[in-house]
Amino acid sequence: MRYLICFSYDGSKYNGYQKQPNKPSIQEEIEKVLTRINSNKLVTISASGRTDSKVHAYNQTAHFDLDIKINVDKLKSSSNKLLPESIYIKNLKVVDDNFHARFDAIKKDYLYKINLGTYNPIEVNYVYQYGKILDINKMLEASKYFIGSHDFTSFTKGNLIKESFIREIYNITILECNNILTIKISGNGFLRYMVRNIVGCLVDAGSGKIPVSKVKEILDSKDRKKAGITMPACGLYLDKVYYEDDSIYEV
Amino acid sequence: MRYLICFSYDGSKYNGYQKQPNKPSIQEEIEKVLTRINSNKLVTISASGRTDSKVHAYNQTAHFDLDIKINVDKLKSSSNKLLPESIYIKNLKVVDDNFHARFDAIKKDYLYKINLGTYNPIEVNYVYQYGKILDINKMLEASKYFIGSHDFTSFTKGNLIKESFIREIYNITILECNNILTIKISGNGFLRYMVRNIVGCLVDAGSGKIPVSKVKEILDSKDRKKAGITMPACGLYLDKVYYEDDSIYEV
Repeated sequence: MRYLICFSYDGSKYNGYQKQPNKPSIQEEIEKVLTRINSNKLVTISASGRTDSKVHAYNQTAHFDLDIKINVDKLKSSSNKLLPESIYIKNLKVVDDNFHARFDAIKKDYLYKINLGTYNPIEVNYVYQYGKILDINKMLEASKYFIGSHDFTSFTKGNLIKESFIREIYNITILECNNILTIKISGNGFLRYMVRNIVGCLVDAGSGKIPVSKVKEILDSKDRKKAGITMPACGLYLDKVYYEDDSIYEV
Repeated sequence: MRYLICFSYDGSKYNGYQKQPNKPSIQEEIEKVLTRINSNKLVTISASGRTDSKVHAYNQTAHFDLDIKINVDKLKSSSNKLLPESIYIKNLKVVDDNFHARFDAIKKDYLYKINLGTYNPIEVNYVYQYGKILDINKMLEASKYFIGSHDFTSFTKGNLIKESFIREIYNITILECNNILTIKISGNGFLRYMVRNIVGCLVDAGSGKIPVSKVKEILDSKDRKKAGITMPACGLYLDKVYYEDDSIYEV
């Protein structure tokens, strides 16, 4: 029986989503709990994608198989009782045996949060403390260049030679509320560091470090050395993963 | 030369504001830094009041004396460079030698934050995860009983026999935004656990556990056993300390 879970986590407590030796990971914590519930028969989970060290998720998704059929409400509440307080399974449902959390995803939203105001020690792991003003109109103008299908070679770490660097960005929105800028990027998929590098470029445009038109130049160059800094992980959130059937969010 | 500082901190990292043996405190961290800047001549700071373990502050205040006269901007930036990322000095100014951060305070605001929605692992140290609906109108109605001068014996730990338990509450506001309830309480001073006990009582009224009118009964009884639970520390913030001269917030 295959299950799909939607879960949130505080990434500041982990060395990333993916399981790795001797370092805390979200995957390991969830697998440990599900394995225990599955009468100690090993359960492995397969997520929509990894998130890097210190990156948060409001709605990450993963599928896994259990031999037993178990009431979803009971499975959810048992899991949450056993999970650390920094990880929470929000929803859980039975899916087709051939459903795949990664390959069936059709869209993902990421958020990046930036504090333009006074340094706030209370949110230091959750909002990047930039502490300067940014020209949001310039950032919006610059964001237009990213919309559509592009080769994002300039915006990834890209250590895999054969991988395609083409991704489609559907939408970028930028909102400011109480000096916190929230940049939301929707696309069909994201390369490693791609969101943080796009945001770095938007910040460079908003601060006046580069002219807005330079953004197109960087994108067209397909040269990783041309792009600006990779923004710190603390401000990044995997916000939502979309499927043809989105009922996981209605459970 | 006497200085007044206004500072913010993430209380989740500390065992409370006040210095104590073998436990991390905000006071100790700040004194360590100021002593170092003061050529290792001991500096002690005197705050507007203590905050308990895990309680946060947006604007705590304290005064201290230095033998040396030092440019306030330089003192602020040097201190912040040496302080841990969970404490930040927002403002600093020279005050009269007889100014006292505690005795000269005329008003204090506290905030208490409650999440009524789905458990959020990302804010677990910053917002109390209540996870149920509350009747805000009932809470507002109940809050009216607290306004004015009252004996708050029912709402404190009160282990000091000779202390007066009379305090004046100026105002209580309750706002809801995206399922986060923020309760703001302003008064001339607060007893230990007083804010968390008042909020606990408002939550009991809002959840229907007690009728609204019971709140007056609890207050009038002056009996600590009558009041409800002390709300967890994670949702509590010292928001602001007011003085006759409030220019510390304009520096």
